[in-house]
Amino acid sequence: METRFFDHNATTPLAPEAKQAWNDAVDDLWLNPSSPYRAAARVHAHLQEARERLAGLFSVAPDRVVFNSGASEGNNAVFAHWAATLPGEAKVGVSPTEHPSVMEAAKHYFGARVVWLELEAHGAVAFDKIPWDQIAALSVMAANNETGLLNPWQKIAVAARDRGIVFHCDASQWIGKMPLDGLRACDFVTGCAHKFGGPRGVGFWLLPEGSGLSSLEGGAQESGHRAGTEDLASILSMIAALEQASVGLATGRDAFEQALSGFEIVGQQAERLWNTSLLIAPEFANVRWIRGLEKRGFLVSSGAACATGKEGPSQVLAAMGLSAESMRRVLRISSGSTTEIQHWMLLADALQAVAAELSAEAAKTNSSVISID
Amino acid sequence: METRFFDHNATTPLAPEAKQAWNDAVDDLWLNPSSPYRAAARVHAHLQEARERLAGLFSVAPDRVVFNSGASEGNNAVFAHWAATLPGEAKVGVSPTEHPSVMEAAKHYFGARVVWLELEAHGAVAFDKIPWDQIAALSVMAANNETGLLNPWQKIAVAARDRGIVFHCDASQWIGKMPLDGLRACDFVTGCAHKFGGPRGVGFWLLPEGSGLSSLEGGAQESGHRAGTEDLASILSMIAALEQASVGLATGRDAFEQALSGFEIVGQQAERLWNTSLLIAPEFANVRWIRGLEKRGFLVSSGAACATGKEGPSQVLAAMGLSAESMRRVLRISSGSTTEIQHWMLLADALQAVAAELSAEAAKTNSSVISID
Repeated sequence: METRFFDHNATTPLAPEAKQAWNDAVDDLWLNPSSPYRAAARVHAHLQEARERLAGLFSVAPDRVVFNSGASEGNNAVFAHWAATLPGEAKVGVSPTEHPSVMEAAKHYFGARVVWLELEAHGAVAFDKIPWDQIAALSVMAANNETGLLNPWQKIAVAARDRGIVFHCDASQWIGKMPLDGLRACDFVTGCAHKFGGPRGVGFWLLPEGSGLSSLEGGAQESGHRAGTEDLASILSMIAALEQASVGLATGRDAFEQALSGFEIVGQQAERLWNTSLLIAPEFANVRWIRGLEKRGFLVSSGAACATGKEGPSQVLAAMGLSAESMRRVLRISSGSTTEIQHWMLLADALQAVAAELSAEAAKTNSSVISID
Repeated sequence: METRFFDHNATTPLAPEAKQAWNDAVDDLWLNPSSPYRAAARVHAHLQEARERLAGLFSVAPDRVVFNSGASEGNNAVFAHWAATLPGEAKVGVSPTEHPSVMEAAKHYFGARVVWLELEAHGAVAFDKIPWDQIAALSVMAANNETGLLNPWQKIAVAARDRGIVFHCDASQWIGKMPLDGLRACDFVTGCAHKFGGPRGVGFWLLPEGSGLSSLEGGAQESGHRAGTEDLASILSMIAALEQASVGLATGRDAFEQALSGFEIVGQQAERLWNTSLLIAPEFANVRWIRGLEKRGFLVSSGAACATGKEGPSQVLAAMGLSAESMRRVLRISSGSTTEIQHWMLLADALQAVAAELSAEAAKTNSSVISID
């Protein structure tokens, strides 16, 4: 079943290296790093070494790395921090295709002071239309979780720095799939372990040097940025996952998309993550496609798992201009590092089989309706 | 070494049942519970079952149980919620012996509107001196992390309800050591897995029915109380740990305290947790006792690990009236479920040996000082 899992943007299976690291740490490094004996100082040293390892992957100073409980905390805390430190009338620019933990946090902390950024026709943030003179800070994700579309975050980071505007990049879907180089140019970066083979409940920020961001009040852990006993086992597990993650190729995804007929592919002409394909089925609600594919051993999504619990269609796709009717037919396919071309091609075959099944069902329903007449 | 670990109030080793539960879940229940396929619905059912199991331990309705990342988040969010929902001039009563994640959060969100509660001579909150008419809400921990002192939270819960005053009880040190009965009478309860043999980075609230508390904005997880992909492996691990935790006996601790001579015992005449002994050594700084004990295989603390990273002495002990000089000699001893009487008695012997060693060192230093003269 694992190789038929096509919903890696929702979550990933734990990498074997990450599982091993967690188990090793709960056995050997479980003391509280803040305790006053030498054995705990050893654990604290491992925590600092972990920080240095993660910092090394991004080529940043270790004190820019702060561990947290994941991207929802990461994104919320950036807006809480901005609300507490930016001038009272300051506005923040936010892409309308952000994850709910960015959009809802922005609305919660800034209300009417959120300036929604404009999009290109294909759905990425329109760099040329960023209203630099209206905003004090902006938040643009690196890669979109639903479409896989890549935003021009590298250009935004440079332009923001030139203008003295603070830039936050939610890189949850980028990290572990794409090169980490360059993220150090963003002031705030959010990362999340369970999107790249790490465990649930752990993530990190890259913070600006000297930042006063404080997510939780209390102890002096994480240099005062986040109170709470450090979860070293999950931190080491996360880093083991990231160290084994690699940049994949779009070969399988592209072959899959070429093999389809009748499906619209969102953002196909734009730069996208190599693992993601957002389809609009020719007919039938996405839940029926999902059931049909699951019967055949393929797990795919209707969109972001974080949004599926909510009423109504995806705000992200609505912002991209999709109609409510189209959104009912959306299927999100996202592969992982162990997915091979043959799995993609089997998925294309399965989609064709489901299409035939749903059409046959529809024909049967129609004819039985007619016969009742 | 494990049976000689006397710092369980800082953190606990992971219970074998908890380790097994985590590993089983990352293998079998790793899908995102919010994903739209049936296999994920099965994971979601396990999450709801976990909520029911935990609710059952407290005899509360399952929707009072909300999972989070631990007690620091738990405590912070209660004050953030109160600040957002209580009237603008409302004051909150807070015990001056609370954990830093309560005291700092209270100060952060209420500033001068915190009313510090008075203490009995022995250090527990003085029930008869609670200024009910001044406050809209109050926060009193069940058991103190440094002294083990028990507060009259059961009486406070009843009195608060009678008066329509909201009551938060940080039960992080109580849960897993003492009976859970009765905690359901508190409006808000904070619990933390790694204090009772569960993993780091996970905890829970009991919330009042219909509470609007929201710790993280974003997805609709945890009925809107906390966005973020649910960490089911850690949740199941936490519950496995709590189910195996048991109320211990003070027999070993009491025999240990009787065997000591020259040590002052904080709160000895008051009701305390069965596992905790806060000592004031007759002389020499606590760091020297801690080093001497560690050489002999015993790990004990100077106080709360959450506070040791900070400058200055414990705010909790200062609130209890200890002098700065006494606080330099404080040792916190806290046992666990596998600690036996013989381990306590070996610790008493070790303390005597360290006392002799430190006295000998002091004599040597004095005589060498004299010989230099």
